[in-house]
Amino acid sequence: MFRIVEVPIDVGALVSGAFRPDCGAVATFVGTTRVDEGAGAEVEYLEYEAYRPMADRKLEQIGAEIEERWDVGHVSIVHRLGRVDPGEPSVVIVVASPRRGPAFEASRYAIERIKEIVPIWKREIWSDGYVWVGSQVGTRSTPAG
Amino acid sequence: MFRIVEVPIDVGALVSGAFRPDCGAVATFVGTTRVDEGAGAEVEYLEYEAYRPMADRKLEQIGAEIEERWDVGHVSIVHRLGRVDPGEPSVVIVVASPRRGPAFEASRYAIERIKEIVPIWKREIWSDGYVWVGSQVGTRSTPAG
Repeated sequence: MFRIVEVPIDVGALVSGAFRPDCGAVATFVGTTRVDEGAGAEVEYLEYEAYRPMADRKLEQIGAEIEERWDVGHVSIVHRLGRVDPGEPSVVIVVASPRRGPAFEASRYAIERIKEIVPIWKREIWSDGYVWVGSQVGTRSTPAG
Repeated sequence: MFRIVEVPIDVGALVSGAFRPDCGAVATFVGTTRVDEGAGAEVEYLEYEAYRPMADRKLEQIGAEIEERWDVGHVSIVHRLGRVDPGEPSVVIVVASPRRGPAFEASRYAIERIKEIVPIWKREIWSDGYVWVGSQVGTRSTPAG
């Protein structure tokens, strides 16, 4: 299941939706909105925007790439858009595989590919304005001012 | 949180319990009971046993090893004992980190260490007996008969 949503992601339902008797391993990656300590007091929330027609298609492409490369029983990727408060999930990846090696590798691959090819951008909303901070996970450029 | 339980594991609650504004990445590994296709029709469920006093302590040790090696904001490991039906979680590991690399590495490390040092064993319960199948994730020896 590959989906872009504008509501909170139900992570528990996504993970348990991957359980299958022929798979012994389910690897999940959740990207949560992170606020650097230095900026913490200033950031109110983050906002994600996508170029939707291409973003949907690129998530499906990543799923197909994973199924070509690894023995997986299930792959889900859900990305959230709009306002996301600090510490909340913006992207969830769930991969089930018979064995744990492929599950770990494929979930890592998925998040790297999302950053590479999916047209989603985020900005930090401050009390007095906003700062574009690039792609959705784990990076943040220092505001210029 | 490091715990051995005899009831189903609430994976969603464990994952969302790891969300923090200073962490951008939450990596979760769920080991589910897997039944090989060839044996599928015969296996009714799996049963996990532990040497409790040492198992509890070893899970805590793994948590401490992770906190020494990686920059993590949260680590949980919960292992289930007793009857577990095919496709249900037997072990759940959740690691939150500011960045995704350490989260992936630490969660993988945790499951490898569990297999190495935690005294937990499993057996498949068949309609006509049982087969010890070693440690809890991803391996299964072929029954002798």
